[in-house]
Amino acid sequence: MKANRQWTLVARPQGDDFASALKWQETPKPVPQEGQALVRTLYLSLDPANRLWMKAEPSYIPPVPLDGPMWGGIIGVVEASRTPDYAVGDIVTGLGGWADYKLAASGEMSKITPPPGVPLTAFMSVLGATGLTAYFGLLDVGKPKPGDTLVVSAAAGAVGSIVGQLGKIKGCKVIGIAGSAAKCTKLVDEFGFDHAINYRTENVRERLAELAPMRADGGGGVDVYFENVGGEIGNAVYDNLAMRARVVLCGLISQYNTVGQPTGADLTKVLMRRATIEGFLILDFFQRAPEAVAELAGWVADGRIKYDEDIVEGLEHTLGAFNRLFAPGGEHTGKLIIKVSEPVA
Amino acid sequence: MKANRQWTLVARPQGDDFASALKWQETPKPVPQEGQALVRTLYLSLDPANRLWMKAEPSYIPPVPLDGPMWGGIIGVVEASRTPDYAVGDIVTGLGGWADYKLAASGEMSKITPPPGVPLTAFMSVLGATGLTAYFGLLDVGKPKPGDTLVVSAAAGAVGSIVGQLGKIKGCKVIGIAGSAAKCTKLVDEFGFDHAINYRTENVRERLAELAPMRADGGGGVDVYFENVGGEIGNAVYDNLAMRARVVLCGLISQYNTVGQPTGADLTKVLMRRATIEGFLILDFFQRAPEAVAELAGWVADGRIKYDEDIVEGLEHTLGAFNRLFAPGGEHTGKLIIKVSEPVA
Repeated sequence: MKANRQWTLVARPQGDDFASALKWQETPKPVPQEGQALVRTLYLSLDPANRLWMKAEPSYIPPVPLDGPMWGGIIGVVEASRTPDYAVGDIVTGLGGWADYKLAASGEMSKITPPPGVPLTAFMSVLGATGLTAYFGLLDVGKPKPGDTLVVSAAAGAVGSIVGQLGKIKGCKVIGIAGSAAKCTKLVDEFGFDHAINYRTENVRERLAELAPMRADGGGGVDVYFENVGGEIGNAVYDNLAMRARVVLCGLISQYNTVGQPTGADLTKVLMRRATIEGFLILDFFQRAPEAVAELAGWVADGRIKYDEDIVEGLEHTLGAFNRLFAPGGEHTGKLIIKVSEPVA
Repeated sequence: MKANRQWTLVARPQGDDFASALKWQETPKPVPQEGQALVRTLYLSLDPANRLWMKAEPSYIPPVPLDGPMWGGIIGVVEASRTPDYAVGDIVTGLGGWADYKLAASGEMSKITPPPGVPLTAFMSVLGATGLTAYFGLLDVGKPKPGDTLVVSAAAGAVGSIVGQLGKIKGCKVIGIAGSAAKCTKLVDEFGFDHAINYRTENVRERLAELAPMRADGGGGVDVYFENVGGEIGNAVYDNLAMRARVVLCGLISQYNTVGQPTGADLTKVLMRRATIEGFLILDFFQRAPEAVAELAGWVADGRIKYDEDIVEGLEHTLGAFNRLFAPGGEHTGKLIIKVSEPVA
């Protein structure tokens, strides 16, 4: 490849109008300067949080600058290097762009050496930020105990499906909330959830009250809620929280495209039940990745954790794929990954 | 007194229409049975949480039954006893009614022996549930550190004014939010707050951003928020939370009278800043009251904590006084107490 194809962020998107905000462009292939390496993108990760990075307001990282490539997590191969940190042929991962190439500064990317039999893409899904988010969010923040009732929203998503399986490993009763009958079937049959609620056809609040009833002695209810969505679904769970419940606030996908005031959280039961809501970003846990990767890899190897990848071929299909992340009740499941180029050029 | 005057809860109030829900009635003075004592009410505590108890839905205690006296915290004197637990003349406190008399079962009420110079009403304000709420909520849940920025809503209220003073004792920069210029002046001049924001005339979100600015290094912002009100004021504070901020969710008074969907909490910044919201009820801390009362009494004695009491004479004025608790920007400050009868009959 001689050109650098890329999706340029030309405007801050309104609602879900990504097509007006991202433009397909070709620029010359960049040339590394002293201290830089040229990384060719192999895989690009698409995640709901990318939507936040497009906004003018800073999120947990600065806003993506206009008129440059949209940012995303990538796995790439070093094609040229003017720094001892990277050798040609190294496989690296880190923050890149929706583009064929990235110029990586020293120390900016991490090397990956996949064990035999483990595909590279696993470092973008179950052994990457997705799996780490499920692992540290549930285990360190949610602190599930055997016998606890765990509820997961966006349960058929990349993070949610792993959260539920981790909950089963830890001895919880696991209830998933998803947006289609097919997803609900998959949660129970494939991922081993105890129950699944289809929020498009069922009353989430009432179903939870049936599946995790409060008892006369004050016990019962939802002990741990892994929150990915917010809005009305979040409030339906909040209304069913157990005494001293823990809410892992991992995402609020229902709000990311909202124009104007989003549906806020009704904290009445959080107060009454002395529950805790804790904001969680995987950023804070990256230094502990090795322990999580080791444990997750073991569970994947022995079949206790299954994971889905939804690999779309071709950088040119990024925009259409990204839209699917935000389609309520759509049939998207599994970690969404764009395959940008072949490992061996 | 031969009759038992009382405010009977005859309906679940809609919004702030308490007048339709509470009826003034006189019933015969009750007669204690074996195992009971007759307690004459001296003081009745009026608190925002009483509003929750009127609802059909259970809060942290069961709903007050219809066609009986409205419940409230009382201090009373034992007039007759058929249990060794209480002697005639004992001063006791606990859950009673908006009524002249209560029949107390064994173990239901706690005895009070005020130290010399301490008025009985202090056990309803700074040394009672009000002071304990401020003490355990701020110190155990909020965990303020010296140099932290502490924000308190309903800051001129009975709990809020003590929270702010405790924050100053702990070395915090304290900002209070209240609903009138007079209250704001009082917060700064009388209670020693560093700043006060009048939510009726100032933009709370912008003022907080000025008083507790976020710094380029990610520091700054509101470290501890003592939440009494929720709604738009709560959201203005949430938008200014510091990294790893702690929100003590003590009350949501803006919602208690709401008919329909209240303004929910925008948790975006709670997520981004990895903040924690923790529901808190003083119920869970009553067994630790002695340590708090001892420390609070010391601070009151040496003048480091000032407290306001708003004592209204006459049970017949209870309804009007209760309404004042919910008047936004009203001039009510201090612990609202109804004096029902004289200690010496």
